[in-house]
Amino acid sequence: MPAQISTLTIGSELLDGRVADTNTIYIAQKLQDYSIEVNKRVSVVDSINDIHRAFDYLFKDSEVVIVSGGLGPTSDDLTREAVSLYFQKPLLFDQHLLDGLKAKYAARKRVFDAVNEKQAYIPQGSSAVPNNVGAAPGFITTSEKKTVICLPGVPRELHSMFDETVLPYLLKKFDLGAEKQYRSFFKIFGLAESVIGARIESLMLSDKISVSYRAKFPEVHLSLKSLAPLDEISAQVRSVIGAEFIYSEDRDANLPRVVHDLLIADKKTIAIAESCTGGLIGKLLTENDGASQFYLGALSPYSNEIKNKLLGVSADTLSKHGAVSHQCAQEMAANVRRMFHSSLGISVSGIAGSSGASSGKPVGTFFIGFSSETGTRSYKFFFLSSRDLIRTYAGFKALEVVRRALKKLPPPPDGEVRD
Amino acid sequence: MPAQISTLTIGSELLDGRVADTNTIYIAQKLQDYSIEVNKRVSVVDSINDIHRAFDYLFKDSEVVIVSGGLGPTSDDLTREAVSLYFQKPLLFDQHLLDGLKAKYAARKRVFDAVNEKQAYIPQGSSAVPNNVGAAPGFITTSEKKTVICLPGVPRELHSMFDETVLPYLLKKFDLGAEKQYRSFFKIFGLAESVIGARIESLMLSDKISVSYRAKFPEVHLSLKSLAPLDEISAQVRSVIGAEFIYSEDRDANLPRVVHDLLIADKKTIAIAESCTGGLIGKLLTENDGASQFYLGALSPYSNEIKNKLLGVSADTLSKHGAVSHQCAQEMAANVRRMFHSSLGISVSGIAGSSGASSGKPVGTFFIGFSSETGTRSYKFFFLSSRDLIRTYAGFKALEVVRRALKKLPPPPDGEVRD
Repeated sequence: MPAQISTLTIGSELLDGRVADTNTIYIAQKLQDYSIEVNKRVSVVDSINDIHRAFDYLFKDSEVVIVSGGLGPTSDDLTREAVSLYFQKPLLFDQHLLDGLKAKYAARKRVFDAVNEKQAYIPQGSSAVPNNVGAAPGFITTSEKKTVICLPGVPRELHSMFDETVLPYLLKKFDLGAEKQYRSFFKIFGLAESVIGARIESLMLSDKISVSYRAKFPEVHLSLKSLAPLDEISAQVRSVIGAEFIYSEDRDANLPRVVHDLLIADKKTIAIAESCTGGLIGKLLTENDGASQFYLGALSPYSNEIKNKLLGVSADTLSKHGAVSHQCAQEMAANVRRMFHSSLGISVSGIAGSSGASSGKPVGTFFIGFSSETGTRSYKFFFLSSRDLIRTYAGFKALEVVRRALKKLPPPPDGEVRD
Repeated sequence: MPAQISTLTIGSELLDGRVADTNTIYIAQKLQDYSIEVNKRVSVVDSINDIHRAFDYLFKDSEVVIVSGGLGPTSDDLTREAVSLYFQKPLLFDQHLLDGLKAKYAARKRVFDAVNEKQAYIPQGSSAVPNNVGAAPGFITTSEKKTVICLPGVPRELHSMFDETVLPYLLKKFDLGAEKQYRSFFKIFGLAESVIGARIESLMLSDKISVSYRAKFPEVHLSLKSLAPLDEISAQVRSVIGAEFIYSEDRDANLPRVVHDLLIADKKTIAIAESCTGGLIGKLLTENDGASQFYLGALSPYSNEIKNKLLGVSADTLSKHGAVSHQCAQEMAANVRRMFHSSLGISVSGIAGSSGASSGKPVGTFFIGFSSETGTRSYKFFFLSSRDLIRTYAGFKALEVVRRALKKLPPPPDGEVRD
């Protein structure tokens, strides 16, 4: 039977409808690869009495409770006090923690308010969990068969502290390092989860292979887990899904980073002319340090006048075909490439919101233009959803057009191509 | 004190990282308008023993537990059995419920499998909660001071059943309807949570006013709740925090939308020249439908050559002061405004990653330029964090510079100004 742990998330925002508890989701997903299960999850407000009752309840079935929240500097942050009282271990001041906190504030040129000193106290005998993202350190307190691991509620702080300190601690505590699990990951863009599911089912894999899907819009991540090597099965998966849809088999990869690396490897430079996405493609392409090696910039025209006057899209194209057209997307990509003297030019023009939709071009229609030294092409796509999701989808589709071009793969099959 | 209820969400998908518990969020949001609070939330897997322990725990502080999940037809759906055993009330067959189920299947042209008959059983003395969206009815079981309300886990079924039957039931049970809760929201940008906390504490508010903070990077959201009107307290809060840091008091507002509305109200147009943020500001300013009323576009130069050749930043500025400087940010903002013929021009140039940092300009340094018909100004800021957060912070800071200019407020106090 897998080791059993539980989570206790603390904060009124979890109970008054403001935020979802994504911390338990993060922890549970990370534990999927090991023989540790989250058997219960409780949320309570910042109240010492409520935290104590939750401990009594959770420690009935769990040796370890991971707590998130209530470590901040304000008076409603009571997790430290609650753990101290529950385990009968006084809160002790730790000069080393205070020095660390002050150094963080100094590095950020922020005034260190006395109220923050609270964060340098942890229950006697606890070990600190370093926080390399935010201020408040966490701590691990153990007494007989009960261990509580306290982390901040801020998700990005909890993620890094869980990965760096808590997960290794749990694997050691439950003696789980030796067991070997084979795993394969497939990061897929351009196919629906149901289509991928049907293709995988056609393989009729042994039930000793655990298959899981995760839709992370606009991608689907597929993972396989088994106690035996997966090389043969992975080859079958690639073949049945279609290798060109799998942009990476690295668990930590993402599409912007893959395109970033391809552009550098190919010694290409790129410039962008994005309309309906407003700046998203530029933002994605500059997410990673070193983007200046390939990214020259963007001339992103939102109005037709700017498309014409600054980017040189012909008035004829705009009046005859409109800004949302093959012709306009092609002129945008070709012109931005010429203006920036880049090896590649990419453009997007589409309809993400109700203003601008017409019967021939409904909301969700967008065109991507791609220009290189071998010529200029455009693709018409359609994706009906909310404004936000249409824009995200179009931004990733543009990256996918670049990725496929650099990998010499066929263009995305759902696009209507025009040369 | 408000009436206290709690939720129990049942299903392994809530504990293995597959789905978030959105049902508690829905219920808590709906209850915000009444004097009823969700004081605890528990998730467990489908196990009679685990459900009983959760009841024991939750009924200590709550008269009512709302259960979601485990009402389906399969063998791992155990909620009915668990309630029946806990309350010592046998499951009784209800012909009326069976007729209803069969009619639903007939209307959808589905075969009614015998396994579904299970859904026509409810604990003796319970009242059924009609399900007008899906199949399984819910039920309410009461015994002395304990009431359990069982609903399906499927969110759209739970929503309609909660609205139509459960909420009216709760208001009647707790004799509410007339009682009014007062609330105030403050959406704050530009002050740390600890600073806001210290300022609020200085007000020494009565403990009848519930105060909560939520850090939603790069903002902090503050909310107050009370049974008495909050007008006077809200005025004190504005004064102690500084009204210019509060960009909205609307619960659903966000900074991009506030700037969007201000630009339209002021009949201003804007163009962007963003370097280290890569396109983020353009993306934020076009998040809402109707952005074409004010947003003309961007000329975002990532390389120095493009800053000079396309945006007209002088070679002298670039060689003497560098791209990350007051001078460059001012020329970028003024030039993009001139090129796009916009009323306003905004620019960002900074160092978000290790490439480009120097001793005088460490990572986290960024300049914002702002140009209007009255002149051009720039601000120097410093925010040390990860690449992603520096960029997000700089993007929101640029929006804040625009917001403050349009509202005729002083510029952000942490910026070193140069005219």
